[in-house]
Amino acid sequence: MEALISRAKVLIEALPYIKEFWGRTVVVKYGGAAMTNEVIKQEILQDIVLMKFVGMNPVIVHGGGHEITRAMEQMGKKTEFAQGRRITDLETMGIIEMVLVGKLNQEIVAGLNRHGGRAVGLSGKDGGLLTARKAVIPGVDLGFVGEVLEVHAEIINTLDREKFIPVIAPVGVDHEGHTYNINADDVAAAIALTLRADKLVLLTNVAGIMRDSQKPETLIPTLKVQEMEDMIGQGTIQGGMLPKVRACERALNGGVRKTHIIDGRVSHALLLEIFTDQGIGTEMIKGGKS
Amino acid sequence: MEALISRAKVLIEALPYIKEFWGRTVVVKYGGAAMTNEVIKQEILQDIVLMKFVGMNPVIVHGGGHEITRAMEQMGKKTEFAQGRRITDLETMGIIEMVLVGKLNQEIVAGLNRHGGRAVGLSGKDGGLLTARKAVIPGVDLGFVGEVLEVHAEIINTLDREKFIPVIAPVGVDHEGHTYNINADDVAAAIALTLRADKLVLLTNVAGIMRDSQKPETLIPTLKVQEMEDMIGQGTIQGGMLPKVRACERALNGGVRKTHIIDGRVSHALLLEIFTDQGIGTEMIKGGKS
Amino acid sequence: MEALISRAKVLIEALPYIKEFWGRTVVVKYGGAAMTNEVIKQEILQDIVLMKFVGMNPVIVHGGGHEITRAMEQMGKKTEFAQGRRITDLETMGIIEMVLVGKLNQEIVAGLNRHGGRAVGLSGKDGGLLTARKAVIPGVDLGFVGEVLEVHAEIINTLDREKFIPVIAPVGVDHEGHTYNINADDVAAAIALTLRADKLVLLTNVAGIMRDSQKPETLIPTLKVQEMEDMIGQGTIQGGMLPKVRACERALNGGVRKTHIIDGRVSHALLLEIFTDQGIGTEMIKGGKS
Amino acid sequence: MEALISRAKVLIEALPYIKEFWGRTVVVKYGGAAMTNEVIKQEILQDIVLMKFVGMNPVIVHGGGHEITRAMEQMGKKTEFAQGRRITDLETMGIIEMVLVGKLNQEIVAGLNRHGGRAVGLSGKDGGLLTARKAVIPGVDLGFVGEVLEVHAEIINTLDREKFIPVIAPVGVDHEGHTYNINADDVAAAIALTLRADKLVLLTNVAGIMRDSQKPETLIPTLKVQEMEDMIGQGTIQGGMLPKVRACERALNGGVRKTHIIDGRVSHALLLEIFTDQGIGTEMIKGGKS
Amino acid sequence: MEALISRAKVLIEALPYIKEFWGRTVVVKYGGAAMTNEVIKQEILQDIVLMKFVGMNPVIVHGGGHEITRAMEQMGKKTEFAQGRRITDLETMGIIEMVLVGKLNQEIVAGLNRHGGRAVGLSGKDGGLLTARKAVIPGVDLGFVGEVLEVHAEIINTLDREKFIPVIAPVGVDHEGHTYNINADDVAAAIALTLRADKLVLLTNVAGIMRDSQKPETLIPTLKVQEMEDMIGQGTIQGGMLPKVRACERALNGGVRKTHIIDGRVSHALLLEIFTDQGIGTEMIKGGKS
Amino acid sequence: MEALISRAKVLIEALPYIKEFWGRTVVVKYGGAAMTNEVIKQEILQDIVLMKFVGMNPVIVHGGGHEITRAMEQMGKKTEFAQGRRITDLETMGIIEMVLVGKLNQEIVAGLNRHGGRAVGLSGKDGGLLTARKAVIPGVDLGFVGEVLEVHAEIINTLDREKFIPVIAPVGVDHEGHTYNINADDVAAAIALTLRADKLVLLTNVAGIMRDSQKPETLIPTLKVQEMEDMIGQGTIQGGMLPKVRACERALNGGVRKTHIIDGRVSHALLLEIFTDQGIGTEMIKGGKS
Repeated sequence: MEALISRAKVLIEALPYIKEFWGRTVVVKYGGAAMTNEVIKQEILQDIVLMKFVGMNPVIVHGGGHEITRAMEQMGKKTEFAQGRRITDLETMGIIEMVLVGKLNQEIVAGLNRHGGRAVGLSGKDGGLLTARKAVIPGVDLGFVGEVLEVHAEIINTLDREKFIPVIAPVGVDHEGHTYNINADDVAAAIALTLRADKLVLLTNVAGIMRDSQKPETLIPTLKVQEMEDMIGQGTIQGGMLPKVRACERALNGGVRKTHIIDGRVSHALLLEIFTDQGIGTEMIKGGKS
Repeated sequence: MEALISRAKVLIEALPYIKEFWGRTVVVKYGGAAMTNEVIKQEILQDIVLMKFVGMNPVIVHGGGHEITRAMEQMGKKTEFAQGRRITDLETMGIIEMVLVGKLNQEIVAGLNRHGGRAVGLSGKDGGLLTARKAVIPGVDLGFVGEVLEVHAEIINTLDREKFIPVIAPVGVDHEGHTYNINADDVAAAIALTLRADKLVLLTNVAGIMRDSQKPETLIPTLKVQEMEDMIGQGTIQGGMLPKVRACERALNGGVRKTHIIDGRVSHALLLEIFTDQGIGTEMIKGGKS
Repeated sequence: MEALISRAKVLIEALPYIKEFWGRTVVVKYGGAAMTNEVIKQEILQDIVLMKFVGMNPVIVHGGGHEITRAMEQMGKKTEFAQGRRITDLETMGIIEMVLVGKLNQEIVAGLNRHGGRAVGLSGKDGGLLTARKAVIPGVDLGFVGEVLEVHAEIINTLDREKFIPVIAPVGVDHEGHTYNINADDVAAAIALTLRADKLVLLTNVAGIMRDSQKPETLIPTLKVQEMEDMIGQGTIQGGMLPKVRACERALNGGVRKTHIIDGRVSHALLLEIFTDQGIGTEMIKGGKS
Repeated sequence: MEALISRAKVLIEALPYIKEFWGRTVVVKYGGAAMTNEVIKQEILQDIVLMKFVGMNPVIVHGGGHEITRAMEQMGKKTEFAQGRRITDLETMGIIEMVLVGKLNQEIVAGLNRHGGRAVGLSGKDGGLLTARKAVIPGVDLGFVGEVLEVHAEIINTLDREKFIPVIAPVGVDHEGHTYNINADDVAAAIALTLRADKLVLLTNVAGIMRDSQKPETLIPTLKVQEMEDMIGQGTIQGGMLPKVRACERALNGGVRKTHIIDGRVSHALLLEIFTDQGIGTEMIKGGKS
Repeated sequence: MEALISRAKVLIEALPYIKEFWGRTVVVKYGGAAMTNEVIKQEILQDIVLMKFVGMNPVIVHGGGHEITRAMEQMGKKTEFAQGRRITDLETMGIIEMVLVGKLNQEIVAGLNRHGGRAVGLSGKDGGLLTARKAVIPGVDLGFVGEVLEVHAEIINTLDREKFIPVIAPVGVDHEGHTYNINADDVAAAIALTLRADKLVLLTNVAGIMRDSQKPETLIPTLKVQEMEDMIGQGTIQGGMLPKVRACERALNGGVRKTHIIDGRVSHALLLEIFTDQGIGTEMIKGGKS
Repeated sequence: MEALISRAKVLIEALPYIKEFWGRTVVVKYGGAAMTNEVIKQEILQDIVLMKFVGMNPVIVHGGGHEITRAMEQMGKKTEFAQGRRITDLETMGIIEMVLVGKLNQEIVAGLNRHGGRAVGLSGKDGGLLTARKAVIPGVDLGFVGEVLEVHAEIINTLDREKFIPVIAPVGVDHEGHTYNINADDVAAAIALTLRADKLVLLTNVAGIMRDSQKPETLIPTLKVQEMEDMIGQGTIQGGMLPKVRACERALNGGVRKTHIIDGRVSHALLLEIFTDQGIGTEMIKGGKS
C-alpha cells in the first residue's frame, strides 16, 4: 500500500505542471537517438501521448537522417554531401520522401496509436501545410534542398481541435510543384511560430548547450538570446548546434514563449522537461544579458 | 536524474488509467475521516482536481455529520435521534442547512480552488437540482428528513461542460417549498444514476466490505449484487453499511457501471482507486454469483 | 371582459420597455426592507423572475444585515462595531458566511425557483468569482472585512447563457485563502462594471437621494456625477448614502450605463423602475451639471 | 404611485402564462375584422410583437377577402363564386397574388415592424414553403383554387431561430409551377401541424362556437373533437364555421395541442386568449365526450 | 462519347472560376430585357441557381419598369414623369408595391425554385431591410420616390447562411412608416456595399459603356473610376447610364471589389461574366488613369 | 461570343446533376490506367477537385500495382505471387508501404492541390482509420496481405467537414501492430459502407461488365445484384472482375446506394459517370432480376 501511495503522490506532484500547460501547444522536433534507440523511442512516444491526455496539444516534427542514408545504400545510390548538406537530385528526393513519409512518419504514427493516442501523419503536402523554396547556398547547387516559405496551419488546427496528434514529415512543395527536403529543426520552428506555440522542444543527442562541449558540468540551463549571440561570436556555439539555436531564435522572435534544446538520449526526456521545475537541457528565452 | 526518471515512469504508468477514464463521470460521496482529518482532506481535494485535469468529470456530494452536531451544541440545541437518524425540527433544519451549505460546502469549494480547480458549490435548491419528499418511517416523525424524489441535472451538466467541478450539499426542497436534509450517500447514488456515471465512489471510515468486520484480511475486493443480497440475509452486511450497499445497488440498477466503497482514511484513496489495477476497498458490480 | 381588456392594455404598455431591455444585464443589489418584509420580498422575487422571462439578464447580489446580528446573538456572540463597520474576527466571519451563503442566499434561490425562475446561488468562492483583499482603515483593524480585488465573471456568464439567474452572496477569498465579508453594494458595483451591465439598481430603505432627507418631495429623479460631487461637498449626501453613491460612481466610470438608488419598501419597486418612463427613486448617470 | 403599482401587478399576473408559453409556437390565422378595423388591427399586431418578446414563436397566416374583391372591382373584373368559393381564372389569380403578397402581407409586416418586431413576409413560394394542388370539387372548375399538398417549414424555422416573425400569405405553387390561392385557415392548420405548434388560433368575426348562433350566451368554451362531430351531424356547426372546425380537427390529429376559434373583433383578443385562464372564444381539444 | 468528353472539358475549364468565386457574394441588379424576354429570363435564373450551387452567394435585386406602367394602365391610372422619374402619389405607390412585391418578385422566386434553387422574396420592409427617405429633387415633388438611408442586412445573412437565395424588391419605408419606391440600381449598390460583396453586376439593355454609344466596337472592357469622371465631364457617359456608373462608384468606394455593367440581352450573360477571363460588358474598378 | 454561350450552356446542363449530388459522399477507387497515364491522371484529379467544389464529398482510395513491382525490382527484390496475389514478407511490406504512402499517395495529394483542391493523404494507420487482419487463404501463407476488420471513419469525417479531400492508401494495422497491404477495392468498399456513401466508383481498365468480354457492345449499363449472381454462376463474371463485383455487392448490402465499375482509360471518366444521364461503364444496384 505504501508503494501505491507514493505513486499517487508523484501524480499529485505533476498537478501544477498539468495546470500550467493545460491547453498549450508544444512543438517537438523528434530525431536523433530518441528515434533510433527502440527503448527511448517508446518512452518518448508515451510521453507525447501522456501530454495529449493531460490537456496539451503536442505537434511532432520528425527528421530522418540515418534511415535515408541506409535506404540510399540499399538502392545502390551514393550519397554526396556539400558543406555538410546532402546533395539531393530528383531520384534522391524520391527516396527521401518515401522514407520520411512512407516509413518513418508511419512508424511514429503507429507507435503513438499503440500507446493510445490518435495520431495522423502529415507531410508538407497534406492540406498544403508547407510551401517551400529552393535553398540558395553560394557556390553549390544542393538540388532539392528547400527552406520553409509559408506554413498553412489549418490542417494542424483541425486535427488538434478533434484531439488528433499531428506528426509532420519535413517535406514541402514549391509553387511549381517540386518537392523539397527541408531541415526538420527549421520546420519545427516555423510551425511553432505560426501556431504561436508555448514551447518548441528540440530533441538532440547532446545534453544541451555547454560552455565547454567536453564538460557536461558546464551545461547552461537558461540562455537569453543576447547571450547566445555572444557565444556564437566567441565560437562557443558552432557546428551542428548553430542552426538549432538560430531556429530557436526565430521561433522566439515570432512569439513562441520558450524553446528548449534537450537530450533525447535520456529516458522520458520530454516529461522531464515539462514536469520538473528545473527541466533538462538548455532553455532559450528572449531578452538581453542579465 | 534517476529519481526524476523514475517519477516520469510513474506518470507513464498512469497513462492507461487516464485513457480509460477520459471523459467519464465519477460521482464521489465525500465524508467521514476524509473530511475531518486536515491532511487527508487536502489529499482528497488534490485527487479530485487531478481527476478533472486529466479529463474526468468528478462530481462531489458531501455529508456533514460531526459539524452539524457541533454547531447544534454551540447554539445550545440538543440533538435527538430516532432509529439512528436525527430528529430534525424546523430550527434544526435551518442550522443543518447553514452548516452544510454555508460552511462545509464552501470549505470544499475553496479547497478545490486553492489546488487549482474551479469548483462551484450547489445545494439541491440551486437550479432546482434536487426535489425531495419527506422520509416516511413507521412509528416516528423524523421531521425534515427527506428522500430524493427527482434530480434535475441540467445545472451539473452546464458546469461540467464549462470545466467547473460541482460540489453538492445534500439538501432538497419538496413541492411545497419545505427544506429537507437528505442522506448524502443516497444523493450521490441518485445523481450518479441520473448522470449515468461511470463510477460511484463512497468514501467511508472502513476498509471496505469484509466477511468479518474485525478481520481486515477478509476484505472482499469485488462483490456482485446477488452475493450482496446473501450477505445481507446472513447478517454479514448490517448497520451503517446496509444503506450504503443499498445506495450502490440502486445506482447499479440505474445504469452506473461500477460502485466502490473505499477507505477514506487512506492517503489519496481516490487516486488509488482509479489509478491502480486492483483499486482499493470493495467494488460492487451487477450480476449473480460467480 | 372590459377588465380583461384593460389588463391586456397594461401588458401592451410594457412592450416598449421589454424591447428596450431585451438582452440587457441588470445587476440588482437586494437588501433592506425588500428582504425583511415577507410581502415585499415575494414581490421583488416575482419582479426578478419576470425580468428574466421577458429577456433581461438579472444578476442578484444580496446583503445580510439583521440576520447576521440575530445569528450572532443566538450563538451568544457580541457584535462590535468600529466606524460603523462590524469588527469581524474569524469566528464571526464563520457565522456571517453561514448566514449569508447557507441561509439568506438559499432563501432567495428557493423563492425565485418557487416563482418559476431557475436560480443558482453563488458566493465569491464559487468558480473563483470574487477575489478579495483586507480592507485597510486607518486606526482600526476590522479583521475579515474585505474589498473586491478582482471579479472573474465566467461563472455568471455561463449561468446567464443557460437561462439561470445568478444570486450572489458578498463573500470573497484573498490569495492566501482567507474569507472576507464585503459590502454588498460594492460587490454589486464591481460585478456590474465587469459585466458592463446596462443598469445597476440598489434597493434601499429610502425613497432615493433627496435634497433634504426629511422632505420626500425634494427627491432628485436624475443626478449627474458632477452634481453628486457638489452635494457630497455640501454635506447633502452623507452617512450610509455616501458609500452607495460612490459605488454607483465607480460603476458608471467603468461603463455601466445607468445606476439607480430606489426605494425597496415600495411594492414591485424593480418593475416600476424598469417599466415606467419616470422610474422611481434617483437615477445616477455620467456627466457634468446641466 | 398606486396606479403604477397596480400596473406592475398586472404584469406579474402574466408571469405564469409567460412561463407556460415560453419557447412555444403559436400559429395565428389573422383575418376578418381584426384585419379591416384599423384600431383592432394595431392591437392585434401589438399582441403578436409582445408574444415574440416574451419568448413565444408566433407564426402569422393571413387571409385577404375584402381587399381582393375591391381590387378586382378597381380593375373592372367581375368576381364570380361557385359553392361559396371564388372562381379564379389566371388573371384573377394574378390580382389575388398581388393583393395578398404585395399589399396585405406587406402591410402586416410593416405594422409588426413599427411596433418593434422584426417581421418577414412569405408567400408559399418563398423557400418552397407551400406545395399546392388544384382543389377538386364535383361539378365545378374553380380554376386556381388550391389545397395544401406539402409544407416545407425550413424557412419558418430559420426565421424563428433568428428572432424574426414569419408572416405568410396563403398562396402556393403546384409541381407544374401554377400558382394557387389556398384557404388561409387550411394553410394555418397545415403549418401548425408541420411545426407541431402548441396552439392554432383562428381569428374570426364571431364570438366562437355557439350552441345557438343567435345567442352569445350559448358560447362553448371547450369542445372536444367527438362533440364537434355530433354538432356537425345535428347541423349546429355549419356554413363558414364548418371548414374552420375541420381545419382545427386536422391540426389536433397532427399533434397540435390546442386550437382556438376566437373573436377577432375584441380588443387584444390574442393576449386575452393566451394570458387569461379562461381564454376567450372556443377551445377545441382532442378526445371524446366527457 | 467524344461529345460527352468535350462537355466534361467545359466543366473542367470552369473550375478556376468556381475556385475563385467560392464563398463570394455577388449582388445582381436584375432588370431590362433579361426580365422581359422569357427565354433570356429563364437563362439568367439558371445562371443564378448555378452560381449558388457552385458555392457563390448571389443576392438579387430586381426592378420593374414596364410591368408597373402596364398595371397602371390596366387600372386606368395615368403615369406622369418629371425629369425622367415617375411622379408617385400614394395610389401609384400602392400599385407599384403590388406589382414589384406581389408579382415580379414572386415570379423570380418561383423561377429560381423551379430551376432547383431555394429563393426567398424580400421587400425592403422584410426584416427591416431598407430604411428609405424621400428623394429631394429641386423644383419638383416626386411623391413617394425614395433613397436608401440604411441597410439592415441581417435577414440577407440569415438566408445566405441557410443556403437560400434572397430576391429583393426595391421598396423601402421611412421612419414615419411611408413606403417609397427606390431605384433598383441604387438598392443593389447599397446592399453590395453593406455586404462588402465581391462583385456588383448590373444587367442592362446595352453592351456596356462605349466610347461612342453607336459603335459597339468602342466598348470599354475595363474602366477606372478616375477615367469615368473624365468621360462624364466630356459627356461621353450621360443619360440613363449616368446613375448606373454613380451607383457603381459608390459601391467601389464602399469596399465592393469589382462592379460590372453588362448586357442582359445576351444568353447566360451572368455566367459569361463570371466564368470567362475577359468577361462581358464593362468592368469598373477603383483607381486612377493608367 | 457564340462559343462562349455554348460553353455556358454546358455548365447549365450540369446543374441538375450538381443539385442531385450536392452534399453526397462518393468513394472513388483510383487505380489502373487512370493512375499510370499522365494525361488521364490529371483529368481524373481535375474531376475530383471539381466534384469537391460543386458540393460533393469525394473520398479517394488508391492502389499501387505497377509502382510496387518497379520499386521491388529497383531494390533487387524478386516478387512472388501465389493464386494471383503477391507473397508479402516483412521487407516487401516495408517497400509497399513506402511506395503507397510515401510516393503514390503524396503524388495524388500534390496533384489535387495543384488543381486547387486541399487534399490530405492518409494511410490506414492515420487516426486509426483501418484495422486489418491477416487474410487467410487455404494452402498458402501470403504473409502481410490483410483484410479490413474495422473502419474508424472519424478522421475522414473531420477532414470532409473542413473541406479537405481525404486520399487513402490501402495499408492497415492489426491489433498486434503488424502492417498489412489490403486490396484497394475492398478498402474502398469498406469505407463507402461505413460512410454510407451515395456512390462507390471503381476505376478499372475495362469498359465495364460485359456479357462477352471480347465484345464492347455487350456492355451492361445496369446490373442488379441477383443478375450478377447468375453471371458469376455462368462464369460470365470471372477473374479480376470477380473481387470487384463482390466488393460492390458488400457495399450495396451495407447501405451504399449505387456502385459503378467504369473505364478509367476514358478522359474525365468520373465526370462522365456523374454528370450524364446514362453514365458510363456498369452501374450495380440492389434488387432481383427485373
